[in-house]
Amino acid sequence: MDLSRAAAEAADAADPLAGFRPRFVGVDDGLLYLDGNSLGRLPVATPAAVARVVEQEWGQGLVGSWGGWVETSRRIGDVLAAGVLGAQPGEVLVGDTTSVDLYKLLVAGTDARPGRDVLVCCADDFPTDRYIVAGVAQARGMTVREVEAHIDDGLDLDVLAAALDERVAVVVLSQVAYRSGALVDIAAVTRLARDAGALVLWDLSHGAGAVPAELTATGADLAVGCTYKYLNGGPGAPAFLYVRRELQEQLRQPIWGWFGQHDQFAMGTRYDPAAGVDRFAVGTPPVLAMAAVEVGARLTAEAGIEPLAAKGRALTDLVVALADEHLTGHGVTVASPRDATRRGSHVSLAHPHAWQLTQALVERGVVPDFRTPDRLRLGPAPLYTRFVDVWDAMDRLRTVLAEGAHEGYPTERSRVT
Amino acid sequence: MDLSRAAAEAADAADPLAGFRPRFVGVDDGLLYLDGNSLGRLPVATPAAVARVVEQEWGQGLVGSWGGWVETSRRIGDVLAAGVLGAQPGEVLVGDTTSVDLYKLLVAGTDARPGRDVLVCCADDFPTDRYIVAGVAQARGMTVREVEAHIDDGLDLDVLAAALDERVAVVVLSQVAYRSGALVDIAAVTRLARDAGALVLWDLSHGAGAVPAELTATGADLAVGCTYKYLNGGPGAPAFLYVRRELQEQLRQPIWGWFGQHDQFAMGTRYDPAAGVDRFAVGTPPVLAMAAVEVGARLTAEAGIEPLAAKGRALTDLVVALADEHLTGHGVTVASPRDATRRGSHVSLAHPHAWQLTQALVERGVVPDFRTPDRLRLGPAPLYTRFVDVWDAMDRLRTVLAEGAHEGYPTERSRVT
Repeated sequence: MDLSRAAAEAADAADPLAGFRPRFVGVDDGLLYLDGNSLGRLPVATPAAVARVVEQEWGQGLVGSWGGWVETSRRIGDVLAAGVLGAQPGEVLVGDTTSVDLYKLLVAGTDARPGRDVLVCCADDFPTDRYIVAGVAQARGMTVREVEAHIDDGLDLDVLAAALDERVAVVVLSQVAYRSGALVDIAAVTRLARDAGALVLWDLSHGAGAVPAELTATGADLAVGCTYKYLNGGPGAPAFLYVRRELQEQLRQPIWGWFGQHDQFAMGTRYDPAAGVDRFAVGTPPVLAMAAVEVGARLTAEAGIEPLAAKGRALTDLVVALADEHLTGHGVTVASPRDATRRGSHVSLAHPHAWQLTQALVERGVVPDFRTPDRLRLGPAPLYTRFVDVWDAMDRLRTVLAEGAHEGYPTERSRVT
Repeated sequence: MDLSRAAAEAADAADPLAGFRPRFVGVDDGLLYLDGNSLGRLPVATPAAVARVVEQEWGQGLVGSWGGWVETSRRIGDVLAAGVLGAQPGEVLVGDTTSVDLYKLLVAGTDARPGRDVLVCCADDFPTDRYIVAGVAQARGMTVREVEAHIDDGLDLDVLAAALDERVAVVVLSQVAYRSGALVDIAAVTRLARDAGALVLWDLSHGAGAVPAELTATGADLAVGCTYKYLNGGPGAPAFLYVRRELQEQLRQPIWGWFGQHDQFAMGTRYDPAAGVDRFAVGTPPVLAMAAVEVGARLTAEAGIEPLAAKGRALTDLVVALADEHLTGHGVTVASPRDATRRGSHVSLAHPHAWQLTQALVERGVVPDFRTPDRLRLGPAPLYTRFVDVWDAMDRLRTVLAEGAHEGYPTERSRVT
């Protein structure tokens, strides 16, 4: 691989997605933003879309706008299904947080596997996934089996297979590991789980919008995911949930809110869950926040998940190559799978002073992401990140390390970043 | 009472809250909006507040804005606590939907009353309240006791008392009945429940921002409520929850998300609930929607809940008096308590053709609210509704009835309103 800056510029010139970059705010302000895997950038179209909902639909339309608002969860869900997740219309719903959606589908899935008393999750999964599993297990007197993933290289399917038996109700797994970026094979895991009679609940948060999930093709049963990372839906943007159509009528989620009710405005005396994916809704979705999610979802669908994934592989390949070439001598190791087809759109670099490096980079116009205790996470979101952005960021990191410029920064975080 | 329009104009001239009206969008466009109890109007300050979060905090600040965003749930909670709910700092949190909050606190309260197998709710309560209770009861093999409230006059405390015994874990009740507007005495119910060893979980949705809750003074233990009605937080705006401080450490809610975790960004291996009210948080709150809630909450707090409640009583007294004077002969009856101190800020009128009347009024520039099967609900939100608005709306209703103008409208709703 040609690791010159000129080669990066040439890659940008040939990038079929280059036209999407100007559709995001702030891309020309000089900041090298490699944290799209934590919070995606603001699409140029979003302020007006949010303002329209605030000023026209709410301010002028008032309650008369509800007819449109009640469709929003499904409408955005269908955009995600077709354009991002490889699912069918009527299988995806947007509204609650990822954590609440995880809880709903985990309980629903567990109820659908009566007599089974084990939940499986990954010991290195994102905290909320492990906590939600622990909470449901404690409430129901179930046992949690935590499978160990390799911290840099992801989950070994043989390790997972060994944890699956006739006691397992549901397996909760992230498609992309939040720390290493390692990608799990949805189809393979689904087959393993089916053989054991268990359901898999996928958390797609760390890859949705950057890698294909192909939920229909892989046979996935249940999934949730975040829209504020690669889907650019805004801070705390409502999450999505997916339930395969054939399962929908068999499952009931535990939070019986009026948005999950059949013929909601009849205000019936008894809870009678709606047909289809609507039964997994609970309360009134945050309409203003949904307007931003819709813009991000449509933009991602327009770009296409396969081109995005291809560019993500190329961008992260460049991170890996530059790290190998320039940073190894400074104590940096690549803490992500080296095979691009086995990772999402971010790469973790391990260094004992990762937190100090993070601070030094931020002051030098690079925004990476720190993950305790020693990981520098670089997430070049393919929709708006250029190859030269990656090159320049890696060059600044090399300079910081070469000059020891990070050594003057605090070694302990005093508060959240 | 002088029922002339001139008297209504005089009441407006003397209204100490009159200065708040111009702080809402659309108040001078001629629409008589009496549905603030369903969706409050847009404050003038909200578009800019939302735009600032979208364009500056998200668009420019990116992940660097998280330091502020993680405080939002508590910050708005404290505004509501001090200015609206009569609670203490650190007792109120904003973030999930009302339905999800109801679920969390209902499960938490039930767990705090082990060995008790009955949940009590009101047969005429808002659907989501009844459904959430039914769902928790079914999941746990508990029994639901539905107490009957008088459909027009609210809950009789003797009826409630008869349903309370040593089997009852939690009572779920709305402070203001969504249909009749009847107000329940929080202090009296709390005493009754305490005597039986039960907790009360209040749904304040239909009164918050219009009537005082005085949660500290009344000794209330648990509450949730909506912010998109009288609190003018926008469609589907995130709800609030309240847990009395002395109870917080004893309770654990069931959805163990990472925002409820102690030292969240340490990403610890085990769920260790945060101290205080933060332990009732779950996932990342919808930041854009929260910006609108904050404006509405601050505006309400600035006006003061006692002046708002006083004006609400006067406005609804005018509705009742005008209905008695002019509409009785047309088959309209007041389906709300006649004593203003026993109701919230809305009045229901019963008429066999309420749905037709609703449609006729909407075409004549009046926005009421229909509640199946035969109720016309008028909610003159005290922050921005004038006495002449009520007078004019009632006058148009009288004209519709006198002319039989409603008779040409469909008798069946074809879809939601």
